[in-house]
Amino acid sequence: MAKAFVFNAQDLFDFMVRFFMKLGVPKDRAKITAEILQSADLRGVSSHGIIRLQTYYGSRLQKGLINPLANNEIIRETPASIALDGNNGLGQVSGKDAMLRCIEKAKTSGVAMVTVRNSNHYGIAGYYAMMALEHEMIGISFTNAQPLVAPTFGKNRLLGTNPIAVAAPAFSEKPFVLDMATSIVPIGKVTVFDKAGDQLPEGWAVDSDGKSTTDPKSVLNGGALFPLGGPEILRGYKGYGLALWVDIFSGILSGAAFGKNVANPGNLANANVGHFFAAMRLDAFRDPNEFKQDMDALFQQLKTAEKAVGHDRIYIHGEKEFELSDKYIKDGIPLLEQVVKSLQSAGEAIGVPFDLHTLGEKDLDPAHAGN
Amino acid sequence: MAKAFVFNAQDLFDFMVRFFMKLGVPKDRAKITAEILQSADLRGVSSHGIIRLQTYYGSRLQKGLINPLANNEIIRETPASIALDGNNGLGQVSGKDAMLRCIEKAKTSGVAMVTVRNSNHYGIAGYYAMMALEHEMIGISFTNAQPLVAPTFGKNRLLGTNPIAVAAPAFSEKPFVLDMATSIVPIGKVTVFDKAGDQLPEGWAVDSDGKSTTDPKSVLNGGALFPLGGPEILRGYKGYGLALWVDIFSGILSGAAFGKNVANPGNLANANVGHFFAAMRLDAFRDPNEFKQDMDALFQQLKTAEKAVGHDRIYIHGEKEFELSDKYIKDGIPLLEQVVKSLQSAGEAIGVPFDLHTLGEKDLDPAHAGN
Repeated sequence: MAKAFVFNAQDLFDFMVRFFMKLGVPKDRAKITAEILQSADLRGVSSHGIIRLQTYYGSRLQKGLINPLANNEIIRETPASIALDGNNGLGQVSGKDAMLRCIEKAKTSGVAMVTVRNSNHYGIAGYYAMMALEHEMIGISFTNAQPLVAPTFGKNRLLGTNPIAVAAPAFSEKPFVLDMATSIVPIGKVTVFDKAGDQLPEGWAVDSDGKSTTDPKSVLNGGALFPLGGPEILRGYKGYGLALWVDIFSGILSGAAFGKNVANPGNLANANVGHFFAAMRLDAFRDPNEFKQDMDALFQQLKTAEKAVGHDRIYIHGEKEFELSDKYIKDGIPLLEQVVKSLQSAGEAIGVPFDLHTLGEKDLDPAHAGN
Repeated sequence: MAKAFVFNAQDLFDFMVRFFMKLGVPKDRAKITAEILQSADLRGVSSHGIIRLQTYYGSRLQKGLINPLANNEIIRETPASIALDGNNGLGQVSGKDAMLRCIEKAKTSGVAMVTVRNSNHYGIAGYYAMMALEHEMIGISFTNAQPLVAPTFGKNRLLGTNPIAVAAPAFSEKPFVLDMATSIVPIGKVTVFDKAGDQLPEGWAVDSDGKSTTDPKSVLNGGALFPLGGPEILRGYKGYGLALWVDIFSGILSGAAFGKNVANPGNLANANVGHFFAAMRLDAFRDPNEFKQDMDALFQQLKTAEKAVGHDRIYIHGEKEFELSDKYIKDGIPLLEQVVKSLQSAGEAIGVPFDLHTLGEKDLDPAHAGN
């Protein structure tokens, strides 16, 4: 367990807005970026939240590697699709604009798809998929990312953890929100095990020979993550196929970088990340209320089913995250002490002090950070 | 190893056409159904091929549980989507018609999506996704299926092996064809291990307590398959989420059955299977040649990358299947002796003798049947 400090969500949001504005991001864009980063912290995906404020966004804005004033530009358009160029803007600003355009298109065409090339890390994929929910639509978002995953029978990092996010509304139940990396775990999880001196579970990752290993150091030093499924005997080639699918839709279809060429955040070059979005009106296919009632019925089938011995609950995707989000909005968001320190020094460096009142201290299991 | 007989692909196709016609299926529809069944055999997915001719299709046609004369009917339509009712027709006939309509829609709208409710087992999902390839489009197809998979922390069969298929063209390389069940293995694979008296690999399936087991009998008698990923530690809830996604798009969005209500092929009721299709014009997003050249480049990155120790090839999804298909068209398709016997007795029963000339015998590893 590690020491954490709890902060009010609005206070953290306001700090992030001040931080971005100081780095030249206009207020409305600073708010969008802060909101999407905070949505990750609220949903328990802290690896994609405020922890990256300086390490990814701040540092790249300061080096001129992200253009805070860039606008999405239409490259191609059909009645049900748009291909956009993000012009190396903030991934969140570009991504939110792209999904809004996708939803607008779907209003007239029934369904729509939008790609974005030349973008940057856009935070959690789930945020964009969830934007569709309030419009009585299903939302989808994919993005590619820096290479960390080895293909089946390979040993090098050739594909990103390329997430898939799908959100669909229910009636009385919480919406279905699948937001999953196509690797088994993120690389940050391996780092956590390494710092704790623990061995990894068998099947998460490979060493520099491409062999399954439980030693976190041999993964971090020249190894790679397994795709979902792990080794061939457990059909890891399916996870590899999902990662490829996401790269084809986000990277190749958009005209962005793909495979091993998606930039590492540390590189002094445009990341050229690619995103994919889709929106589908429920009433294009069915009466929306009937759809939502059937979603409830399916979830009830699952939740009331007999549990495996030793377990007392079957979850629907997104359910835990909605519960956590409610709790964090009410009680505050816990940040690990090391994260607080990094925010203090990042803020100090640019004259935006991290001087927030803490709501208290708590012990946090760092192994639960990230997804 | 088990004895197999080799038959000419065209001979097998012609037999299937005669078989279906005898059961009241019009010739053009018999050809469509035979073609899609054979595409599974050619691609090595023998679990979805001629082996089901009588066990699924023939038996249900004879019992009046599938209407061979049914037509797809439009329930809802927008510029980029159609919701169809299959009227309990053959899944292949309904599915091919639905994907053709989807491709036609995409020609004018850029992208399109089509759902089908009230259908039957449609064979391999990959066939429909691949239909898009010759139109310079990307194709997608999902279908739900009889319940065989337990949700994470559950123990009962609540979801189908709900496949995901995505096909995208390349330039000189073979197209990308992902066609994967969202379970680790199909139930047929467990049966093969049981018949051979072998133990299952750890992590494929659970017993009637919901506990991971290596005993095939305890899976077949009241157990269930694990979703892709397997147990929680290897993130099986992601595979569970993918299976749910497919059920939401194929079952709920279409208005078909879903979850545990998708009919078992043995039930004397309409199966009410649901399908989902999407087609995306490459030129809606990018110059198609640039897209295809980047596909080649990505595949070359992967194929020429360093191999894990003990391996000498990294595959792209669909590649093995294209090679096998070429070989089987040239050399004939091997069928296990027990499959030949079942075809002989099924043919005899309806007066369509399975009197094909065999091209020879060979030994086949039954463990390689199915995907």
